[in-house]
Amino acid sequence: MAIAQHQSLSGRSPLHDILAPEAIAIVGASSDSTKRGYKAMVGLIKDGYEGAIYPINPKADMILGVKAYPSLEAISGKIDLALICTPASSLPGIIAECGKKGVKGAVVLASGFKEIGGEGVKLEEAMMAASREHNVRIIGPNTSGMFNLHKKVNLLALANVKPGHVGFISQSGNMLLSLVLEAEHNRHVGFSTYVGPGNQADIGFNDYLRYLGEDDQTHVATLYVEGFRDGERFLQVARDVTAVKPVVVYKSGSTELGAKAASSHTGALAGSYAMTVDLLRQVGVSVVHQSDEVLPVAEGLAQLQKAPGKRVAVVSDGGGQATISSDRLSEAGLELATLSDTTQQRLRDVLFPQASVINPVDVAGSTDANPALLATCMEIVADDPNVDQIFLVGMFGGYSIRFAEQLLGDEMRGAEAMIELAHRVDKPLVIYSLYAPIKPPALRRLHEAGLPVYSSIEHAVQVLAALGERGLYLKNAADQVPIEAVVPHANQLAVFEKARAEGRDLFEVEAKALLRSHGIAVAEEILVTDASELADVAAHFGDQALVMKVVSKDILHKSDAGGVKLFLKGEQALRDAHDQIMRSCKAYLPTAEIKGVLVTPMAKKGTEVIIGVSRDPIFGPVLMFGLGGIFVEILEDVAFRAVPLSRHAAESMVEQIKARKILEGARGEAAVDKAALVDLLLKVSSIVSAYPHLAELDLNPVLAYEDGYAIVDARIIVDQETSA
Amino acid sequence: MAIAQHQSLSGRSPLHDILAPEAIAIVGASSDSTKRGYKAMVGLIKDGYEGAIYPINPKADMILGVKAYPSLEAISGKIDLALICTPASSLPGIIAECGKKGVKGAVVLASGFKEIGGEGVKLEEAMMAASREHNVRIIGPNTSGMFNLHKKVNLLALANVKPGHVGFISQSGNMLLSLVLEAEHNRHVGFSTYVGPGNQADIGFNDYLRYLGEDDQTHVATLYVEGFRDGERFLQVARDVTAVKPVVVYKSGSTELGAKAASSHTGALAGSYAMTVDLLRQVGVSVVHQSDEVLPVAEGLAQLQKAPGKRVAVVSDGGGQATISSDRLSEAGLELATLSDTTQQRLRDVLFPQASVINPVDVAGSTDANPALLATCMEIVADDPNVDQIFLVGMFGGYSIRFAEQLLGDEMRGAEAMIELAHRVDKPLVIYSLYAPIKPPALRRLHEAGLPVYSSIEHAVQVLAALGERGLYLKNAADQVPIEAVVPHANQLAVFEKARAEGRDLFEVEAKALLRSHGIAVAEEILVTDASELADVAAHFGDQALVMKVVSKDILHKSDAGGVKLFLKGEQALRDAHDQIMRSCKAYLPTAEIKGVLVTPMAKKGTEVIIGVSRDPIFGPVLMFGLGGIFVEILEDVAFRAVPLSRHAAESMVEQIKARKILEGARGEAAVDKAALVDLLLKVSSIVSAYPHLAELDLNPVLAYEDGYAIVDARIIVDQETSA
Repeated sequence: MAIAQHQSLSGRSPLHDILAPEAIAIVGASSDSTKRGYKAMVGLIKDGYEGAIYPINPKADMILGVKAYPSLEAISGKIDLALICTPASSLPGIIAECGKKGVKGAVVLASGFKEIGGEGVKLEEAMMAASREHNVRIIGPNTSGMFNLHKKVNLLALANVKPGHVGFISQSGNMLLSLVLEAEHNRHVGFSTYVGPGNQADIGFNDYLRYLGEDDQTHVATLYVEGFRDGERFLQVARDVTAVKPVVVYKSGSTELGAKAASSHTGALAGSYAMTVDLLRQVGVSVVHQSDEVLPVAEGLAQLQKAPGKRVAVVSDGGGQATISSDRLSEAGLELATLSDTTQQRLRDVLFPQASVINPVDVAGSTDANPALLATCMEIVADDPNVDQIFLVGMFGGYSIRFAEQLLGDEMRGAEAMIELAHRVDKPLVIYSLYAPIKPPALRRLHEAGLPVYSSIEHAVQVLAALGERGLYLKNAADQVPIEAVVPHANQLAVFEKARAEGRDLFEVEAKALLRSHGIAVAEEILVTDASELADVAAHFGDQALVMKVVSKDILHKSDAGGVKLFLKGEQALRDAHDQIMRSCKAYLPTAEIKGVLVTPMAKKGTEVIIGVSRDPIFGPVLMFGLGGIFVEILEDVAFRAVPLSRHAAESMVEQIKARKILEGARGEAAVDKAALVDLLLKVSSIVSAYPHLAELDLNPVLAYEDGYAIVDARIIVDQETSA
Repeated sequence: MAIAQHQSLSGRSPLHDILAPEAIAIVGASSDSTKRGYKAMVGLIKDGYEGAIYPINPKADMILGVKAYPSLEAISGKIDLALICTPASSLPGIIAECGKKGVKGAVVLASGFKEIGGEGVKLEEAMMAASREHNVRIIGPNTSGMFNLHKKVNLLALANVKPGHVGFISQSGNMLLSLVLEAEHNRHVGFSTYVGPGNQADIGFNDYLRYLGEDDQTHVATLYVEGFRDGERFLQVARDVTAVKPVVVYKSGSTELGAKAASSHTGALAGSYAMTVDLLRQVGVSVVHQSDEVLPVAEGLAQLQKAPGKRVAVVSDGGGQATISSDRLSEAGLELATLSDTTQQRLRDVLFPQASVINPVDVAGSTDANPALLATCMEIVADDPNVDQIFLVGMFGGYSIRFAEQLLGDEMRGAEAMIELAHRVDKPLVIYSLYAPIKPPALRRLHEAGLPVYSSIEHAVQVLAALGERGLYLKNAADQVPIEAVVPHANQLAVFEKARAEGRDLFEVEAKALLRSHGIAVAEEILVTDASELADVAAHFGDQALVMKVVSKDILHKSDAGGVKLFLKGEQALRDAHDQIMRSCKAYLPTAEIKGVLVTPMAKKGTEVIIGVSRDPIFGPVLMFGLGGIFVEILEDVAFRAVPLSRHAAESMVEQIKARKILEGARGEAAVDKAALVDLLLKVSSIVSAYPHLAELDLNPVLAYEDGYAIVDARIIVDQETSA
């Protein structure tokens, strides 16, 4: 059935007590109608909040007909949540009071904390000290507030906000207002819970997401994020939640200007946008890129069944809009389904001869006097096993306005047929109508039956893309099992301990040996610590051209120091190279401690790729893949995934980069061995997970071949700080 | 003043008679209310068309109370325009009848012409033969119709479409409907003239655009295009029109799927999307990329003064939306203006201390009880000479709804102050309000005063971008003078004539000599036709490393034939190379006629760029610039401009490519001599314009250096078809 079914995570997040409180205190309640302490009272009373309301104001006896108290301790009943409307400087004291009274959580509206720097940072720390000491959880500070409409807790006192199933966490209060107004005027969705996490001094996005994941009233968790606090934890929670319900994230800071603005707004570190998007998609999050797409996509994901794939059938009553839809579908990574001969014949049977029965289907006037025929076309394409999603494009709902009033009955019949179809097939029906802005009866009927109708082709296509991606993500769930960490031997761990003891990173030879010991194909290398060994080395490698490189923890740029020699063949060449390297490196840095040289066969020409791992301050260990040279440095054409990787994640990295055409053998060259690269990515992931002191790893370049690859350079940076 | 002033081209397009007709015949008029021949009558009568209406229907005496005629010739009065509602097969005959009656133009609704191929193509040719013979201009066929609301000609019988100043030409009737509904429900614009050009069998986009350019009622010419028929002519007209009023084009076919769909819709060749966009922007057209941006951008360009530049000051009452705006501005190529110290101090004087007075300005609550303060902030930033445009972001108009009803007066005062500011400053004010969907009084007031209010940050930013681009385009108008063609000497022209007589393209040596003769720096080359000349050649070049290449019209792939030798020094090396080349080329193709070899110094290493010229079937001679190798082949990172180029066009080509960072010296290399490349582009343009038989030109590669460039290979393809 094309209408979504709903489930939630089991479990009980500690936020339930705070976000569904049974008694609320308003600290700084007021009779002044412009104050938040007044408006929150109005919101609670108007919406019919069933718990106790305690206004706190030492100067008032009653506020809005409710008995007021001079302080929290003057109240005899228990309090779950305090809304705090007083200025920033009062906060540490008030949180302590809350704690003494047993208040579980506080919503802190004041700004003037971490986001302003300096004194604000100290004030936030003082407040958090009180929070920890007294076990009071903090929403905010610098938050726009919260509501839980199904519990009639409306601390924002928003009028006309409809209870429904969109859960929303937003670091912008205006964004909430904008969604509420859009929902009221153009959509048929309402909201479950809203929270503004503000500075996330205590409770972060991951906690709120877990709560929305468990909340049965929330059918889609929607987030506007300026910056994550604990990204690694967020990814874990998101993976759990996306398994049961859709998660939509709009992340700002896609540009340097935006990231700067975000930081001055909530004190958040925006982090790399491209990386954040990759990591969110890795755990099944639907990422939108524009603010005006947030609600359309959330509505579509909440109300429609996920799609089995990305092959879309377009049914259109206007050739121009069919063209536009084709462009947008293609740009969004969707496909136009190839309709079977049977499907085409069935369409021909019901449409005018000038209609196009090749996808996009263009009815070319066939439905002008008979709009219900559009539903018939949708039924026909829905029967085609090559079709994953059905996209209706055009003026449905407006035939009775545009052509003749008597078509209304036929339009209503068409709507009923679409609803029936939606209940019958496991493929989503996404509907765009240019008449959506005026909400004619047939479109109202579709909306009421749970079928969203979009007024923008662009937004509708974003919904199709999100439904397709979510469907494929869940289908791939079996492959999504992250690869397990290797179990290092004591001697492998010892390499890191030795390096840490010596305050250095791994030598290249150590790094390569480590990789080799874990089954990664690294060319044979021999460490030569004395020139007398060179004869044996020459004999060992025979006829191959060799490279010789200096090994010294003191020499970082080997080439600059004259520490690398290429194209060496035979014992004499090795001896000459050895002499030159030693002389040159000693001249370059007389104090350098030289351990020896490394001799290895020269790698044959291949396609340069780069694999890197770093520990991101927000998201933890992250693996990067891309082509070498300008692709990384100029074009920033790289893919990121959080470690550990699943096989599917590794495969999708290789497919994601724009330069994949080169890997596939553009410019007359042979395609490289993608399977070998995928294996390498997985192995790197399993190694990174195993060594807590591996801070960074760089394989640069890796030469990819038609068959296998060669790792030319490997660098492993050791974490010197963290204790064992 | 920030509100746009309006002007039009002088002149009188032949379309005035047809699009503002004084008498209209409806061929195929009908009393059946579902037929177009009925609806058009209703449209004309309802809207109060003041000219004569002649229904043609042999079976009726009266239609809708208007006397009907059995045929066109039965009418005694003159007729300007005929709306033809009969099937495709009737058209050749009816057009002939129109001609006999002196009808100036016909709107042909029927489909079944070129767009269906085969018989349809022939039918269109037959109709066009009648059109030419009888001098009847054709709108369509396969058109959705036309209207001219200021003349009360409403052949589409659209209800509720408001007369106004958006002229619209659209190959999609649904797109018109969609814009009309959007205008009615969410915007404050109306329409002047609409035409569906359909298959453009006769009248094309260029003709319609010229008409809109001359039409005083049209303040913005807006086009939805699937394919141009005469692109070269369109560019000329667009250059004229954009000088006096804005032109907005939305072009579909940005993807292969879309281009295919367009071709089956109107039989149009979509052409290369990237090239089309570059050429349109070259002549000042505002190109939008999404269908839902068309009306917002058209409205903004029609109503707001163009911007003096791209530096935007954002005034916002929500930090999150300020962040989102910063992202979008940056992505759209706009800048956040750097506010002067004075401006910042003036803002500080009126705002709360926690406000951010660095752009984006975030009032941080300062306006909650005083929304008119937003207008004050706009006035302050508008005074700053570093600011070109002012962008208001947030909830203006909704303060009286969100906070307290008594703020309404203050909001209305704010609106008046903004209107006053708009009339005072020569910088546009673009306003986004999340309350736009509910049209509160302050926003209605702004709309009525000609200040559009947007409900999407994304759309508002597209308007800012279009205003900035249009302002800069007009400011650069002085530089936009296209470079003049060189005047070739007889002996230069003779090279082409000789090649044409021999049925071949120019030899490389001829191509290079031609370029050199026009002042382009091409390395010295000596054509050696006999080995005996090699001693002199060796002496002439002295110590330089040389290249030798075979010269033969029969050998296209010189390297494959062993026809290229590198790194040659001294006479003996030249002799050996000459022998080898001759042997090898004769072995490769025994029948090859070998003219000799070319000797030239080897070019030193540089950054590879490519300059190409081709004659596009739609747009005529087009110049392409890009970096060599993968940048062209894989990344398609190239810029296109129509020939002749202006200096500004040449400069903007070099700035446009994504790989410009490489030209600017990324990866530790020196920046290349951009000025020399710009000169080269201009010279190439002036040469291409001068030689009618130059079909294609390829300089590939050109090596760009810190100082100057070297042309390594030059190819000129000769047009063998066109007569002299």
